[in-house]
Amino acid sequence: MSGNRRTFLKQSGLAVASALGFPSVVCSAKDAVQEPDALPRHIIHLVADGMSMGTLTLGDAFARLYRQRGLRFFDLQQMPGAVTALVNMRSLNSVVTDSAAASSSWGSGSRVVNGVLNQLPDGVDLYPLYQLFKEASWKRGLVTTTEITHATPAGFVANCSSRGSAEEIARQYLDRHVQVLLGGGRKFFEADKRKDKSDLLKEFRDAGYAVFHQASEMESASLDRPWLGVFASGHLPYTLDQYADPKLLTSVPTLAAMTKRALEWLGRSDHFILQVEGGRVDHAAHNCDIAAAVREMLAFDEALEVCIEFQRRVPETLLVVTTDHGTSNPGLVGLGKSYADSLKLFSQVLRARRSFESIADNLKSVNSAADVRKILLEATGCEVPETKAVLLLESVNGKRKPLFDHMNSAAAQLGQLMANYVGVGWTGTSHTADYVPLVAIGPGAVRFRGFLQNTDVFQNYLALAGIEYRNPTAPLMSECGPSAEEAEFGDKHTEMFA
Amino acid sequence: MSGNRRTFLKQSGLAVASALGFPSVVCSAKDAVQEPDALPRHIIHLVADGMSMGTLTLGDAFARLYRQRGLRFFDLQQMPGAVTALVNMRSLNSVVTDSAAASSSWGSGSRVVNGVLNQLPDGVDLYPLYQLFKEASWKRGLVTTTEITHATPAGFVANCSSRGSAEEIARQYLDRHVQVLLGGGRKFFEADKRKDKSDLLKEFRDAGYAVFHQASEMESASLDRPWLGVFASGHLPYTLDQYADPKLLTSVPTLAAMTKRALEWLGRSDHFILQVEGGRVDHAAHNCDIAAAVREMLAFDEALEVCIEFQRRVPETLLVVTTDHGTSNPGLVGLGKSYADSLKLFSQVLRARRSFESIADNLKSVNSAADVRKILLEATGCEVPETKAVLLLESVNGKRKPLFDHMNSAAAQLGQLMANYVGVGWTGTSHTADYVPLVAIGPGAVRFRGFLQNTDVFQNYLALAGIEYRNPTAPLMSECGPSAEEAEFGDKHTEMFA
Repeated sequence: MSGNRRTFLKQSGLAVASALGFPSVVCSAKDAVQEPDALPRHIIHLVADGMSMGTLTLGDAFARLYRQRGLRFFDLQQMPGAVTALVNMRSLNSVVTDSAAASSSWGSGSRVVNGVLNQLPDGVDLYPLYQLFKEASWKRGLVTTTEITHATPAGFVANCSSRGSAEEIARQYLDRHVQVLLGGGRKFFEADKRKDKSDLLKEFRDAGYAVFHQASEMESASLDRPWLGVFASGHLPYTLDQYADPKLLTSVPTLAAMTKRALEWLGRSDHFILQVEGGRVDHAAHNCDIAAAVREMLAFDEALEVCIEFQRRVPETLLVVTTDHGTSNPGLVGLGKSYADSLKLFSQVLRARRSFESIADNLKSVNSAADVRKILLEATGCEVPETKAVLLLESVNGKRKPLFDHMNSAAAQLGQLMANYVGVGWTGTSHTADYVPLVAIGPGAVRFRGFLQNTDVFQNYLALAGIEYRNPTAPLMSECGPSAEEAEFGDKHTEMFA
Repeated sequence: MSGNRRTFLKQSGLAVASALGFPSVVCSAKDAVQEPDALPRHIIHLVADGMSMGTLTLGDAFARLYRQRGLRFFDLQQMPGAVTALVNMRSLNSVVTDSAAASSSWGSGSRVVNGVLNQLPDGVDLYPLYQLFKEASWKRGLVTTTEITHATPAGFVANCSSRGSAEEIARQYLDRHVQVLLGGGRKFFEADKRKDKSDLLKEFRDAGYAVFHQASEMESASLDRPWLGVFASGHLPYTLDQYADPKLLTSVPTLAAMTKRALEWLGRSDHFILQVEGGRVDHAAHNCDIAAAVREMLAFDEALEVCIEFQRRVPETLLVVTTDHGTSNPGLVGLGKSYADSLKLFSQVLRARRSFESIADNLKSVNSAADVRKILLEATGCEVPETKAVLLLESVNGKRKPLFDHMNSAAAQLGQLMANYVGVGWTGTSHTADYVPLVAIGPGAVRFRGFLQNTDVFQNYLALAGIEYRNPTAPLMSECGPSAEEAEFGDKHTEMFA
């Protein structure tokens, strides 16, 4: 942090007092509801990455089928004092954000270009949320099912011109001393995998971190040291694939287990902020893989349950649950007479055993419809007719192109094929501009009502922590085509898209 | 209403008192916010039919492009005292509702089978909202851009085993004396068009109604008589098509104009309830026609603006704005480097001049790609390349089938084609299971927070009007496929979908 920026950082008397040992006043949830001006001592920010409204709805439908109980997300909305909102997550250069710009908007209060972490187009770094909270003596944690260096966790901590610079982000986590780091992405810390050959695992250990790679190590890790737990070389496996592989089920902790341990570590502090990301909801939606997506939604919901229990025990906790953008906008389509087939079809998702990702390479290398059918039966539990398998093979081999060019991918076409059998359609394979839902509970929740800009989240967190700071902003980039006037009354048409 | 059901209808002392002439106390919006137990004298229920989250978002994006101001829907969410919720709109037989079951859930507090209006599967009629409010001496109005007998308005008034029985519904409107009826569907009232040859227009006149067919007649109609205004034989034209035809622009009132007049009529009463439906948002979404959909969203928003102004003037008004279900879940897809192309593409929607519906017949009868291109250029303002026009022609002629059978329609394929040029993808062409947003303001709004069942809306309206009544319900119909247990551990696969 440069000296002149430091001068902008002012903590209120309250925040300073609290850093010096704000007394732990235990009050009931009712008290928290009735005190609109109460301030939280703890903030938990939960993100189901890439959760379109359809993904949320189908997560709930799946939860009812799978465990006979809907998502806690909706229980939370029902609780006294819970506040709901819609949020505009747009980035600096597009109404469709990516996760880096989305998390940066929460992490700096400033919109950045997609793919960038807390940096304006002119190269000026934005002072990130976790640095501000560090200086206010709040403990900080990141928990995710993706690589720990991925865009959503990184947006609370790092400055980087590219979200792809995972090795640099890993180093910034060390330099900026995030106390609890649990997720995937071990390769970005390993000497033999890093381009600069530096042994970041050792450097973390030298800095006092407990470093571990197994779920069991996490469970027994000492609370006296900060934690770096990286449980996979890349992203953690999909929950669906984990259940198909008993070894993964043992070695890789669930999001709920990581969240529980993170709260045990952080919960000893007077003040902490924790981000919990269900990161692979987004990946499954990119792949048009509803079976994988709803399993990730359930894993996220179990982590949410851990947080709700914590908030109930420690009501000075502000809980904010949201997503960073829609992805592929799945929808369970009305099918059959009186739409009576839709849920019957959707319940076939219960038969799925493997993610699309896990069968992608196989699918691309097969040559016969029979092989396609075999692979799909094993992965999805669905018997796909010969005729459809042939069409999919043609699509995968590039012999058959859809009308919407964007859908010309194996994932998109597999999604279209499976839509016949699970009833779920998709708008594409990338993020969407959809406004997203948010629910908040606890002291300060009232700030999160109505309709928010993504950047409001940062301002709210700072205000609730008594931190006065404002990052610089850049003007939204113009992306418009014709002006309304030109389009309304113009008579020239140019072949823009030929 | 049968005698024994009548005994269930009890009005509270307050409702009776108000029916006898509750004084018009004008209080400020602030007062309304601060009195959580206040009761409304007026209820306005606005429905943007078939508005998925993507439709709402893109309505806002379009409004910014078209008129440099976003939707009032979001301004409303921001207002002090506004309450937001998500709503589960499922019907009795499906998680995907149709408009009849959706409106019946609001109109009776009971879930019915899709396609049915306020009737249980055993044939038992449910006592509808507007009959209950009639007996409580509230004036009642219906305003819509669809046929006035369509499912959404009918759900507040009628009992019918099929939503298709429009002629019967028209008669029930007369028998049940809805004072303000403004929309389309004239043919269901005309002697030469009705199967029973009865002249319902005359019967309405004989019953004291002012009956009119032109916007100008509506503007000058006397407030001393009830109104039946039917401005088109079927649905009112799409706003987009109306702008393309100056005659329609003069003869057919906008939704906002109808709403304004309805409020002038009803606003003289101590108590009224009004449903305002932007019904063709849904139709456009069924057709994967984003240009038509966002124009309907704007027309709806202008009607909402009229209602917000009314609520500001008469704060004892409860305003509830929602939708009955998602349709086709459009999403503006992230396209181009850093998703920077998305809004540029979407802004091409400004060039559109005609709805897909208006060109459907032409498209089906053409034989050359050149003709396809000509029709699309005139309607959408987009130059579609030859290669794509050929593919569309093959799709329309049934020579080319998509992988998802449900998408095998001219509308779906035209939507997929146009997605290349406007950036908007679709999940299908029918309703979706998505939970839907709701925003409420005014006395009683606090009842609409968090997560609601569609049937709660009926119970809330009754409670707020001091009416005690409960309709019978039927158990949700089972639609599940395999149980969780069977699917998890079963090893039998049957070719269910071949």
